[in-house]
Amino acid sequence: MSGDGMKLVVVGAAGRMGQTLIRLIHQTPGVQLHAAVEREGSSFIGHDAGEISGLGNIGVAVTSDALAAFVHAEGVIDFTSPAGSVVFAGLAAQARIAHVIGTTGCTADDEEKFEAAARHARIVKSGNMSLGVNLLSVLTQQAARALEASNWDIEILEMHHKHKVDAPSGTALLLGEAAAKGRCVNLADKSVRVRDGHTGARENGTIGFATLRGGSVIGDHSVIIAGEGEQVTLSHHAADRTIFGRGAIAAAVWAYHQKPGLYSMLDVLGLANDQ
Amino acid sequence: MSGDGMKLVVVGAAGRMGQTLIRLIHQTPGVQLHAAVEREGSSFIGHDAGEISGLGNIGVAVTSDALAAFVHAEGVIDFTSPAGSVVFAGLAAQARIAHVIGTTGCTADDEEKFEAAARHARIVKSGNMSLGVNLLSVLTQQAARALEASNWDIEILEMHHKHKVDAPSGTALLLGEAAAKGRCVNLADKSVRVRDGHTGARENGTIGFATLRGGSVIGDHSVIIAGEGEQVTLSHHAADRTIFGRGAIAAAVWAYHQKPGLYSMLDVLGLANDQ
Amino acid sequence: MSGDGMKLVVVGAAGRMGQTLIRLIHQTPGVQLHAAVEREGSSFIGHDAGEISGLGNIGVAVTSDALAAFVHAEGVIDFTSPAGSVVFAGLAAQARIAHVIGTTGCTADDEEKFEAAARHARIVKSGNMSLGVNLLSVLTQQAARALEASNWDIEILEMHHKHKVDAPSGTALLLGEAAAKGRCVNLADKSVRVRDGHTGARENGTIGFATLRGGSVIGDHSVIIAGEGEQVTLSHHAADRTIFGRGAIAAAVWAYHQKPGLYSMLDVLGLANDQ
Amino acid sequence: MSGDGMKLVVVGAAGRMGQTLIRLIHQTPGVQLHAAVEREGSSFIGHDAGEISGLGNIGVAVTSDALAAFVHAEGVIDFTSPAGSVVFAGLAAQARIAHVIGTTGCTADDEEKFEAAARHARIVKSGNMSLGVNLLSVLTQQAARALEASNWDIEILEMHHKHKVDAPSGTALLLGEAAAKGRCVNLADKSVRVRDGHTGARENGTIGFATLRGGSVIGDHSVIIAGEGEQVTLSHHAADRTIFGRGAIAAAVWAYHQKPGLYSMLDVLGLANDQ
Repeated sequence: MSGDGMKLVVVGAAGRMGQTLIRLIHQTPGVQLHAAVEREGSSFIGHDAGEISGLGNIGVAVTSDALAAFVHAEGVIDFTSPAGSVVFAGLAAQARIAHVIGTTGCTADDEEKFEAAARHARIVKSGNMSLGVNLLSVLTQQAARALEASNWDIEILEMHHKHKVDAPSGTALLLGEAAAKGRCVNLADKSVRVRDGHTGARENGTIGFATLRGGSVIGDHSVIIAGEGEQVTLSHHAADRTIFGRGAIAAAVWAYHQKPGLYSMLDVLGLANDQ
Repeated sequence: MSGDGMKLVVVGAAGRMGQTLIRLIHQTPGVQLHAAVEREGSSFIGHDAGEISGLGNIGVAVTSDALAAFVHAEGVIDFTSPAGSVVFAGLAAQARIAHVIGTTGCTADDEEKFEAAARHARIVKSGNMSLGVNLLSVLTQQAARALEASNWDIEILEMHHKHKVDAPSGTALLLGEAAAKGRCVNLADKSVRVRDGHTGARENGTIGFATLRGGSVIGDHSVIIAGEGEQVTLSHHAADRTIFGRGAIAAAVWAYHQKPGLYSMLDVLGLANDQ
Repeated sequence: MSGDGMKLVVVGAAGRMGQTLIRLIHQTPGVQLHAAVEREGSSFIGHDAGEISGLGNIGVAVTSDALAAFVHAEGVIDFTSPAGSVVFAGLAAQARIAHVIGTTGCTADDEEKFEAAARHARIVKSGNMSLGVNLLSVLTQQAARALEASNWDIEILEMHHKHKVDAPSGTALLLGEAAAKGRCVNLADKSVRVRDGHTGARENGTIGFATLRGGSVIGDHSVIIAGEGEQVTLSHHAADRTIFGRGAIAAAVWAYHQKPGLYSMLDVLGLANDQ
Repeated sequence: MSGDGMKLVVVGAAGRMGQTLIRLIHQTPGVQLHAAVEREGSSFIGHDAGEISGLGNIGVAVTSDALAAFVHAEGVIDFTSPAGSVVFAGLAAQARIAHVIGTTGCTADDEEKFEAAARHARIVKSGNMSLGVNLLSVLTQQAARALEASNWDIEILEMHHKHKVDAPSGTALLLGEAAAKGRCVNLADKSVRVRDGHTGARENGTIGFATLRGGSVIGDHSVIIAGEGEQVTLSHHAADRTIFGRGAIAAAVWAYHQKPGLYSMLDVLGLANDQ
């Protein structure tokens, strides 16, 4: 790593997440912005990456030449599209640099390509880059395994802002999956998504969901494990959308020292063996 | 009030609530058990009220003669049945003693009879005798009135033990009614009882409910009022079923000094003018 | 009010709070930015108010001529300095416009001047402009009055970010004052600010404080009122520093329709008679 | 295990914990009360164990002959005294039955004797028999290890009833120890037990404590891990003092199938390798 910190490339630099990453890299010790990439034809090509992110001029012009951007870099952070990420994975492998992928919606076919690239590259890929949510999911799985389903009831509660159009949230379902995995059951067989009117008593072993909506809440999640006379609650509160960018930068720094392979945020947290 | 505290009669003395009341009165300074009443034919008539409540002998035999029990008493606490409470209201009015009614399921006809009795008697009647829940309901109404519906979203969350067979809880609905009253709307028009799948964005002015079930939770309720960038939460946690009995005793002591009339727990809390 | 909404002036326009107010007014229906004022000699004079706030040009140049700015305006929002606010109060009274003062650190002498100005002007002044915190303080006072000190214990818990250098927070103390006022006691006589080692049992009637510090938490406050077998908790969560600006704008809109006078945020909330 | 469930002996049968255990065993499927032991000379010898526990006659007389009680039993549950537990460990080893020890205050010398006995016996020993608290302690240790001290601040909050005379609680300190262990530091070097007045900014790597007291709260504990823009909270709520007895029974059932050895509740939870 160079004296000024790990040299990172941001791809999708002009998007909302790209701009957030540029600002975060600028303020995080141990990393530096090496290059900013946008797709050919973008109106931002040639503009300063700091200017478009509200930082003022930082001397890094946005480019569409990803390969040139990667060749002297040490890592790339990528919240673009499945198609884009597949291309970047090939280039990152060629350049032997770490590739952090926060892109969602990838197909099985895309995943195969990431696995192929990971034979030569260090890739960290996760659907949710928040350190806290990933930690919560491991702890949920362990708690669900440790506490017997016949005596302990698991409920997952989430709250989001009033503009969210679906329920439960993806993270709530991810936590439900973690609980189900801890109990060696299928979430689909056990989940109770709605309670209203005469519901009957709670069935042992089920995993309940409850949804709150209101205000500008970015994302609150709780896993409640209730037994006779005691209750364990594991919660995550997101105060800020930058946490995904922060997690991605932490993943890049972690990946710097690893062998080639396809990793998850649980590896970054050192918890991959605890699931 | 006599030197040993206000003389209270418990009616329905051998029931679960009656026994709880006998134990609570025994341990509460400022009140004493004057008599314990059960219906004629009960196998508990003649037994000591302390013995049947697990206190050991306290020198008060269970009787079926309510009028004799009331005549030298100062108050009666009544969690019996609508029919029973109507009869006891008449006797309490005759004896000019305070009558605390925690009985639920009364008809409009019963209520008229309580009002008639209240011309001569001090009656405190409430569907929920917990001081905390009654306080929460007043505070909810005020908060709902103070914070504009277009900017603030109200959600009501409740958790109860796994044996509860319906949802939302009666207390959650009571809190929803308080919120609706504060906003001068009908709860039925505004309540959202279920969220699952594609729900669309939250509609302004609605009042949402969410239900958790698990373990042995006696009753947790939260009113969440979420605005842009801030959130107010008003919560009640019931740790113990004795709170209803404690509230009833507090109501009796309060009623001792009042003029005849039909009161609610909000009067006892001194908050009747704040709704 | 003009068709495009109430015409507001922001004084201290180039400061952090001034810029926040300019952005908020720009995005809030029912209000518009009429003028932006900075002190004479500021390097921002003549610059566009939108440009300095990150909005891009909005056609309002920063000026140092407050009187000219006020004369066709309908309200002024002022988070400046005591000396500045005293001057602006005089000018606002002359121009007969509403004056919202969020300035802190005013002396008794300053307050007298505000009172004098309020004979002709509508002034809303508060040390904390958040609607939620002001609501919480009224509710705390009422709850403290309703629930007897001998049976209910009040605790105030706050959490702030790791950079905060003092404890408890000003808002925690404000909530403690509200609780003490509800009980008709002096907070100084009753507060317990530290517990460590052998403390002895809790003394009835005291008001305890507890402080958490960590991360980037903007401000969480809870008033916990714990009785035998039940607990009422009243909480406020600040997610965003803009809530003070939002409250100030709401105060200006409210003041538009009022008679001259010196008001607080409790008047804005319609709760002034509930304390 | 016999058809009616694992045969358990309760020692210290007439004490508060002994009576709780007798009631719990009576109502828990899969276990049965085989014998109830008190020390020689106790006035309860010969009385029915059910009678003294409020269950009515259950046909098990209290005895002082521990060896006879153990010989056909399958496990013994022991919340007595260090001296008593050392004796019972020897007898349980002779009888080859599981021995669950919830006794506190044991010396290093006592522990050596338990280790010696554990060469032939299955002993489960823990200072806190609650499954939830033990789980929380493991999860705390893992979270503390996974999240870097330079970016994440750990705070431990506890609330107990108003009669508690010391602070912080033993369980809060146990959770602090778990956090310190996860970070490979000494709690004594890092703990901040009091904050009041000018404290300065929070020092990285410290572990803060905060204490609430009020009402009848049995024991609430939260480990709050706050980072930039997000927060993870791990909590335990004790609603009922029976949880220690329930945990001990679960430990006995678990121990039935184990090899001789000295185990902790983490083994019972299957989490011994996760610390």
